[in-house]
Amino acid sequence: MQDIRIELTQNPTHLPEDESTLGFGKRFSDHMFVMDYTVEKGWFDPRIVPYAPISLYPSTMCFHYGQTTFEGLKAYRTEKNEILLFRPQQNFKRLNISDDRLCIPKLDEEFCLEALKKLIQIDEKFVPHSKGTSLYIRPFIIATEPQLGANSSTQYKFIIITSPSGVYYSSGLNPVKIYVEDNYVRAVRGGMGMAKTGGNYAVSLKSQVNAHNNDYSQVLWLDGVERKYIEEVGAMNIFFVIGDEVVTPEINGSILDGITRKSMVELLKKEGKKVSERRISIQEVEDAYENGELKEVFGTGTAAVISPVGVLKYKDKVMTINDNKIGEISKHLYDTLTGIQRGEIEDKFGWTVKVY
Amino acid sequence: MQDIRIELTQNPTHLPEDESTLGFGKRFSDHMFVMDYTVEKGWFDPRIVPYAPISLYPSTMCFHYGQTTFEGLKAYRTEKNEILLFRPQQNFKRLNISDDRLCIPKLDEEFCLEALKKLIQIDEKFVPHSKGTSLYIRPFIIATEPQLGANSSTQYKFIIITSPSGVYYSSGLNPVKIYVEDNYVRAVRGGMGMAKTGGNYAVSLKSQVNAHNNDYSQVLWLDGVERKYIEEVGAMNIFFVIGDEVVTPEINGSILDGITRKSMVELLKKEGKKVSERRISIQEVEDAYENGELKEVFGTGTAAVISPVGVLKYKDKVMTINDNKIGEISKHLYDTLTGIQRGEIEDKFGWTVKVY
Ligand SMILES: Cc1ncc(COP(=O)(O)O)c(C=O)c1O
Ligand SMILES: Cc1ncc(COP(=O)(O)O)c(C=O)c1O
Repeated sequence: MQDIRIELTQNPTHLPEDESTLGFGKRFSDHMFVMDYTVEKGWFDPRIVPYAPISLYPSTMCFHYGQTTFEGLKAYRTEKNEILLFRPQQNFKRLNISDDRLCIPKLDEEFCLEALKKLIQIDEKFVPHSKGTSLYIRPFIIATEPQLGANSSTQYKFIIITSPSGVYYSSGLNPVKIYVEDNYVRAVRGGMGMAKTGGNYAVSLKSQVNAHNNDYSQVLWLDGVERKYIEEVGAMNIFFVIGDEVVTPEINGSILDGITRKSMVELLKKEGKKVSERRISIQEVEDAYENGELKEVFGTGTAAVISPVGVLKYKDKVMTINDNKIGEISKHLYDTLTGIQRGEIEDKFGWTVKVY
Repeated sequence: MQDIRIELTQNPTHLPEDESTLGFGKRFSDHMFVMDYTVEKGWFDPRIVPYAPISLYPSTMCFHYGQTTFEGLKAYRTEKNEILLFRPQQNFKRLNISDDRLCIPKLDEEFCLEALKKLIQIDEKFVPHSKGTSLYIRPFIIATEPQLGANSSTQYKFIIITSPSGVYYSSGLNPVKIYVEDNYVRAVRGGMGMAKTGGNYAVSLKSQVNAHNNDYSQVLWLDGVERKYIEEVGAMNIFFVIGDEVVTPEINGSILDGITRKSMVELLKKEGKKVSERRISIQEVEDAYENGELKEVFGTGTAAVISPVGVLKYKDKVMTINDNKIGEISKHLYDTLTGIQRGEIEDKFGWTVKVY
């Protein structure tokens, strides 16, 4: 394994006394991990250096051709003052999957995890202490060759930055209102919907702005071919409790293979619940609603873990779910997963990874 | 109109004596145009400054969420030593269309054109002299807010860089081999295929690399829904001459509304040729080929103007077009359009714009 060069900051900063002012993704720790790639050298010069601007020529390819990928995960401080990561191997594995789709060279997943641990050790004081807070971790790759041909870049930068964060959704576990998009499309089979890459978020913005303007907080996407089947929410996978079955759309190539989603499915299976990863149409959801079978709807993602859906709007139909209150299963899953993540519930799955 | 602040370089450079060494998009003129945006100020501080790296925090949104747009056009030096732009208003108009799709604030198109003229005047010596060369112009916008929420940015940078360029395709007017993609998809209706934004190029890379590995130079995309109808090539629109009809796919929301395409259609109409913008399936192309009706195929785009297609491969079928030679119509259109662009043929359309 390569040695990681370390250069510590001359201007250390500190977390605010009042951690509730942290917000999300606005404030960064003192250091970052950086590694470069060229065709000749492969990935080289891994280093932990002070968090600082990077300098790029305007011709740098990532500004033009969208060859970028990223990941998002969190570190949590436990009651015993340990620092835990949640399934970080899955994130680096997924990063390599995204990279493969985007023609970005493969990373050594084990080395990435070691680098991340080292980075968090150095910036340990930035993992906040209060309940509900965490250190949000953003590994990302950008194409850095300075030239304008629309090809795959021959140079890249891999960077990990970390951000001490409060709660992502200020509304917390309050149910959100979600708008089913029937005009715009996020991704289609054969496209890059399964990758965590900038274009998938760029394409979503317009619809998201429309939703916000109509007082909905996020968008639920339908498939791009038939415009019938449910895909996922802006930055979450989605689950429906219909009768005694918990349903989430299957991994089909156009949605992100969410790590929270995967964990929820495993949790539910372990508990003997009936859980299905399968195709589900918006019509089926409407029908279940009409029949009184639609018990709960919730989104899953690293940011909020679980976001109960209180209102779902499709065309002219507004469906209010579980009286706009968090459901039993949602609450149970939230408590269990956050309990494991924070080291309060025994981790029988081997999901958590200690930073020290 | 806002005043443009000008700061000239202290380290002027020059074009190489031998302009044939220029290549494409690798070497840049001494200056660039830059303008910033914040919600409070709108677009502000327009300036022409030395070409230099820009400094951005790693959290800058364009590295993560793909909120970027761009344009591509050219300036040509005429025999009389004038400098001409080709339909630049169309490029700034299209930039605003892309920006609208990507939730990027609108630009003043007239002001952009004035800024571009000013920039070229200052860097006049970088417009090369030899036949076939040009100054490639790249206006682009990147989201610059330094925060990790996946929303629309509140800050942007608009930059114009220029690059003295040789011929884009080293093969020149030699016919290219094109591979019809039947596995990957570039864009789908409801998506952002009509915008010039990084994600559309990122999604294409993998397929393009496959094509290259099989000795094909570019990919022809089919529609994302039925996988039947022809869309466009990587960075070109496509035309088919079938019998006496010239056909190009209609503007349908998922392909770029190419300015070269538009100009070719107008040229053909003016000349009384039968030209159709309509849906055309790959099956129709195959049938025309079998019947001996497929006379010519060519791509159109700013970079190459016209790229004749000599070989078209769809699944197992390899179609050789016009004996792998440039066709009459392709040649005529190429000569006419490049003639107008370089001021050698009278511009009856009012397409060219003088820089002085
Ligand atoms: C598009 C999309 N879907 C789903 C998710 C949820 O994935 P995970 O549970 O791995 O955070 C995310 C966020 O990470 C996302 O961006
Ligand atoms: C995807 C795509 N299609 C078509 C074109 C051709 O457009 P134009 O003729 O305006 O250069 C381009 C290049 O600019 C392009 O990138």
